[in-house]
Amino acid sequence: MGIAIISPSRDTTVWVKNIRKLDKNIEIQVFPDIQDYLSVDAVILWQHPKGILDKFPNLKLICSMGAGVDHILSDHSIKKSIPITRIVDEKLTFSMTNYVLMGILNFHRQIDRYKSDQKNKIWDMSNPEIPIVVGIMGVGELGGDVIQKLQLLGINVAGLGYSPKENLTYPYYDKSRTAEFLSAINVLVCMLPLTPDTEGVLNKDLFQKCKKGTYLINVARGKHLVEEDLIPAIENGYLSGALLDVFHQEPLPQDHPFWNREEITITPHIASVTNPDAAAPQIIENYNRIIHQKPLLNQIDRNKGY
Amino acid sequence: MGIAIISPSRDTTVWVKNIRKLDKNIEIQVFPDIQDYLSVDAVILWQHPKGILDKFPNLKLICSMGAGVDHILSDHSIKKSIPITRIVDEKLTFSMTNYVLMGILNFHRQIDRYKSDQKNKIWDMSNPEIPIVVGIMGVGELGGDVIQKLQLLGINVAGLGYSPKENLTYPYYDKSRTAEFLSAINVLVCMLPLTPDTEGVLNKDLFQKCKKGTYLINVARGKHLVEEDLIPAIENGYLSGALLDVFHQEPLPQDHPFWNREEITITPHIASVTNPDAAAPQIIENYNRIIHQKPLLNQIDRNKGY
Repeated sequence: MGIAIISPSRDTTVWVKNIRKLDKNIEIQVFPDIQDYLSVDAVILWQHPKGILDKFPNLKLICSMGAGVDHILSDHSIKKSIPITRIVDEKLTFSMTNYVLMGILNFHRQIDRYKSDQKNKIWDMSNPEIPIVVGIMGVGELGGDVIQKLQLLGINVAGLGYSPKENLTYPYYDKSRTAEFLSAINVLVCMLPLTPDTEGVLNKDLFQKCKKGTYLINVARGKHLVEEDLIPAIENGYLSGALLDVFHQEPLPQDHPFWNREEITITPHIASVTNPDAAAPQIIENYNRIIHQKPLLNQIDRNKGY
Repeated sequence: MGIAIISPSRDTTVWVKNIRKLDKNIEIQVFPDIQDYLSVDAVILWQHPKGILDKFPNLKLICSMGAGVDHILSDHSIKKSIPITRIVDEKLTFSMTNYVLMGILNFHRQIDRYKSDQKNKIWDMSNPEIPIVVGIMGVGELGGDVIQKLQLLGINVAGLGYSPKENLTYPYYDKSRTAEFLSAINVLVCMLPLTPDTEGVLNKDLFQKCKKGTYLINVARGKHLVEEDLIPAIENGYLSGALLDVFHQEPLPQDHPFWNREEITITPHIASVTNPDAAAPQIIENYNRIIHQKPLLNQIDRNKGY
């Protein structure tokens, strides 16, 4: 009985340490150094090599190291009968919300304009605020928290989601009313899960329905954005700029046109990074639950994709 | 009976318009075009020429155009018997709070680092957050709102003020415990009123008591800061940088050393700008109250200075 950690792009030392702290008897193997495939009941994954799970005949549980599971669901070789869980971490929500608020406030209070004025020693007090209504695409755990915090700050919000919802404290639009949603807002934040339905949702057609000068923030997944549609949308005035934390290819390739655009701010997928201190107890809890055949925490629904 | 507006540095057209909307019979004169000094019961001031109020023999009320009244109190020629009011504007609080939150989040999430990395096409995911405890100097109307909002966001705060306070929901230090306050925080926000007690409070001695790398935000008044002490405090590592909205001389002189320092972000006194839509009703209300000898709203205490 044991766990395998498969996360080729990350240093997993602290994950091993945190799991050991909680259960010193648990057997942990770290990819690529896996000696005994038979003994593995559960895997902890982040961007694993596709197809590799076939090697674990006794696998009962798949844990994502983060909030997203698209990196798991996109591996079609995985047996559909194996349950998948994700991390729900208050700290992760805290980080994500702070990052998104930072992006929203920097647009609202025009920090880029003032930085540029400072370089040119310009003192221009006119129009110090851009009035904003923030539209959040994806009103789940993370999107819902941003909406709640914006409301506490007195900033106007609207939400867009893929299923009908009721009794919300903010204007909510389902997917069929996307155009109406976009005409009500001028800051667009993508916090959707990545599913076949949402892949490429930030594209030319959507941007053309935005109010002129809408500001885009993408903290979800790179594949929500059709990257070649972004710069034309800025050049045509539909978007005034973008704050992007996620990209099709990460690290962003050196020759990618986003690096050099003043209107685009790039951060290296750091909006919210799973904290192993918070994640390890959730994984151990679910590991014990699967062994004792109890219902799992934060299990995702394969059909919905999140 | 009438009002005079004395604000040489601002376009007051919208102020006149807003007052007229509320009371079309009121006589309004705008400095320097004052024909009839005798008829003026109330003045609306922003950085008036000192001594000028002596010319209004029937003056009963002085209204600041903003939240601050230091520009009025520093004119010692003004008779102490004339009451002074200031603007308390929800919108003003909203703007101020958003600006301060922006500054705090930009430090916490290191936007300057990522902007610089972007210029150099560097993808560095390490240490994406600087842990913060925010210290607010001045816990009045505006400072109190920032504290409340930070608490709602789950960010740790402490307050410092010039009088003892009880039953607060956050750690509070009075002036005598400044060193203790500074050792508990690493973001220092000055939101104090400008009084003889607080002038020059942000100085070398205070900076030397800060934790190394503390970030300074000044949105109060330029004279809270001893400007020549700032760059040495950055160079000695006490401060990591500063966001400044206010200066001794505004506009900031072209040869001022702050313009060119990367660690210092300058904005042109726009953290919070009084909105004439919100201010005019308060001024008219107080004008009517003074005429009918009723108690004033938002009257300041000359002894406290705010």
